[in-house]
Amino acid sequence: MTTAAFDFAPLLPSGLPAPAAKWAGLAKYSFIGGNNDPDQVPVDGLIEAVRAVLGREGRTLATYGLASGPQGYGPLREFLTSKLKRCAGIDCVADDILIVSGSLQALDLVNQTLLSRGDTVIIEQDTYQGALNRLTRLGVNATGIPLDHGGMRMDALAEALADLRRRGVIPKYIYTIPTVQNPTGTIMPEARRAELLDLAARYGVPIFEDDCYADLIWDGRRPLALHAMCRTGAVIHIGSFSKSIAPALRIGYIVAPWAVLSRMLALKTDAGTGALEQMVLAEYCRSHFAEHVPKLTRGLRAKLDTLTDALNEQFGTAAEFEVPKGGIFLWVKLPDHVDTLKLYQAALDAGVAINPGPEWSTGKAHAGSRLRLCFASPSHQQIREGIAVLAEVCRREFGVPARSANVETRAGRSI
Amino acid sequence: MTTAAFDFAPLLPSGLPAPAAKWAGLAKYSFIGGNNDPDQVPVDGLIEAVRAVLGREGRTLATYGLASGPQGYGPLREFLTSKLKRCAGIDCVADDILIVSGSLQALDLVNQTLLSRGDTVIIEQDTYQGALNRLTRLGVNATGIPLDHGGMRMDALAEALADLRRRGVIPKYIYTIPTVQNPTGTIMPEARRAELLDLAARYGVPIFEDDCYADLIWDGRRPLALHAMCRTGAVIHIGSFSKSIAPALRIGYIVAPWAVLSRMLALKTDAGTGALEQMVLAEYCRSHFAEHVPKLTRGLRAKLDTLTDALNEQFGTAAEFEVPKGGIFLWVKLPDHVDTLKLYQAALDAGVAINPGPEWSTGKAHAGSRLRLCFASPSHQQIREGIAVLAEVCRREFGVPARSANVETRAGRSI
Repeated sequence: MTTAAFDFAPLLPSGLPAPAAKWAGLAKYSFIGGNNDPDQVPVDGLIEAVRAVLGREGRTLATYGLASGPQGYGPLREFLTSKLKRCAGIDCVADDILIVSGSLQALDLVNQTLLSRGDTVIIEQDTYQGALNRLTRLGVNATGIPLDHGGMRMDALAEALADLRRRGVIPKYIYTIPTVQNPTGTIMPEARRAELLDLAARYGVPIFEDDCYADLIWDGRRPLALHAMCRTGAVIHIGSFSKSIAPALRIGYIVAPWAVLSRMLALKTDAGTGALEQMVLAEYCRSHFAEHVPKLTRGLRAKLDTLTDALNEQFGTAAEFEVPKGGIFLWVKLPDHVDTLKLYQAALDAGVAINPGPEWSTGKAHAGSRLRLCFASPSHQQIREGIAVLAEVCRREFGVPARSANVETRAGRSI
Repeated sequence: MTTAAFDFAPLLPSGLPAPAAKWAGLAKYSFIGGNNDPDQVPVDGLIEAVRAVLGREGRTLATYGLASGPQGYGPLREFLTSKLKRCAGIDCVADDILIVSGSLQALDLVNQTLLSRGDTVIIEQDTYQGALNRLTRLGVNATGIPLDHGGMRMDALAEALADLRRRGVIPKYIYTIPTVQNPTGTIMPEARRAELLDLAARYGVPIFEDDCYADLIWDGRRPLALHAMCRTGAVIHIGSFSKSIAPALRIGYIVAPWAVLSRMLALKTDAGTGALEQMVLAEYCRSHFAEHVPKLTRGLRAKLDTLTDALNEQFGTAAEFEVPKGGIFLWVKLPDHVDTLKLYQAALDAGVAINPGPEWSTGKAHAGSRLRLCFASPSHQQIREGIAVLAEVCRREFGVPARSANVETRAGRSI
């Protein structure tokens, strides 16, 4: 006798996201996800750090929060205070920091603390998909501000703030990735940061500064963080070790005034973020962070060169982009008639994974022919081969690039 | 010129929990929290496991999810399938398992998948505070079922199910900790488990089985899990490594049919659970779990003996309890007029942290003179001293135990 399976469907509340599909593995040529370069994981340094920190403090794993309290492992918060001061100009103490399980938990905690269904926030028009998806699920209206070479455009922001005020809407925050913006790679200059702070203050809107990619600047020089430039405590600053050390370690952080940090802490009911990962990061980074990052960025820079060379070779003038000064992604514009949502599916069938622009933008039309290419994870050879396959698929589906770039290139070389 | 600080208060939505207080450190004598014995953390084994697994696979930290997909590190799920079969009789494959960031994330994912505000669930009358608090925050009605020596009482459950049906209410799940129940320490016999499954099936209600403490049984023998006994896939089973290895490692798991697991996976938007912790657990547990656990439980059993001795010595007949067959906590009944919420505050002022009963029960009156004492973390000496201080505070505040137990005991011995 077989027994009928229990049916959960009638019990599910309305509004759930669609069920996840079974995982199908990584694409052969994967240009998606904030993955990093496997050759650049400091494996030996991490092993040595684990040995040292567990040998010294391993017994504390028996206690939730390592007897450091719910804000996270003390030595990691101490490292962050010095790192944030040195790199971003942020003056803070360990008590201003909450360690979280990746910057995605930071997004969740900030959103839970400030947002209700029907609220409005201001974000960059092209922005991080994870931030966008969260707002959609929360039923929050996202007003997208166009970007230029210097990041979010202040004329457009001023207009949006004035327009919202006329309509009686007070936005809950201005979310920005000012330092190596995702996906455009732009870095907002300090003068514009000052303008942004001024505008936000004039309208009484706090700023939510996502600095997750800020360590990855080729020349190592970055503008002051908005948090560092703000004198009223109106900036919630978040960051991560995913891009500087390894994304599979789920460690991020929030720097914010206690009035709002204490609210987020009350919502963080996970009994603490993974202690071993906090311990190993604190131990490794204290001695090695400053030397590791320039080595990492040299490697990323070389992969970006390979990617832009491959795009020029395969797509010619059909692919437009600005070469970013840091990061792990390139934002590419194809001819207007290319629909990157369709390209995404066709490319995936051919083993190439890309991020279609509309998933990374509030401007669905503006982003319709754009795509994001992440270059840190694939090898140089995978980048070259993958872009060649992508060009072939794009030509087949949309007629661009017009000729085989290989032929064109060979022809060019034979002249 | 000083600048006024930005005021976040007007931006906060209604219904937020109260802000967290600054952390004040651990109490001198701490009988709270699911902390474990610091002497029993297998520090050397964990260091060796990290060395081995990172040496072999460290490069995969550059990829979210370690290229194992969103359900968690493959080898950890493989370990779990064999461990769950061997210990709990559960037949499952790696694809039936979702690794989560501690069993608290499991509670959140199950609740998000099944519950809406106003729903009703059935739970054990005395139960885990973290489960209770979540239901309260979600606005879900929790019907508490009284327990006896064998766990949840089936006569009371049958009555509650019939009563809810009469009122047209279909409960969303029956939440139970059948194996070393928190806080009562009871273990539900297999015959009663069969009754529970039968009742649940008759009313079309799924079972949510929390097996977090099931590894910690003194004689190592446990009944089959409800999940193992159910033939219709109506049981969602969760577990954790917090109690068997170390709570500061935030690794738990869910075993459930794909129809509901795929819903939870869609709600798990944290880009994966900490990879290093998953890797080290898989590596360590594969070779050492089976030998580590009996060693751990021998130590816990000895601490429980110290605690019950101290209670008998200090409280005499004023403290009633059943000695559990496993676990890390003891559920204690004091005379009816003792208000453990008041005792909690007075004891804390004297350096002793306890869990007052009403925070661990739907029966506030029933639990008003009860308390939970966790015994894994404090040393034998701390247990003896802490219980002596607690008895002193209790005598001062409530007049019981009537005489100084020390004097009584000495008198007793001198006879």
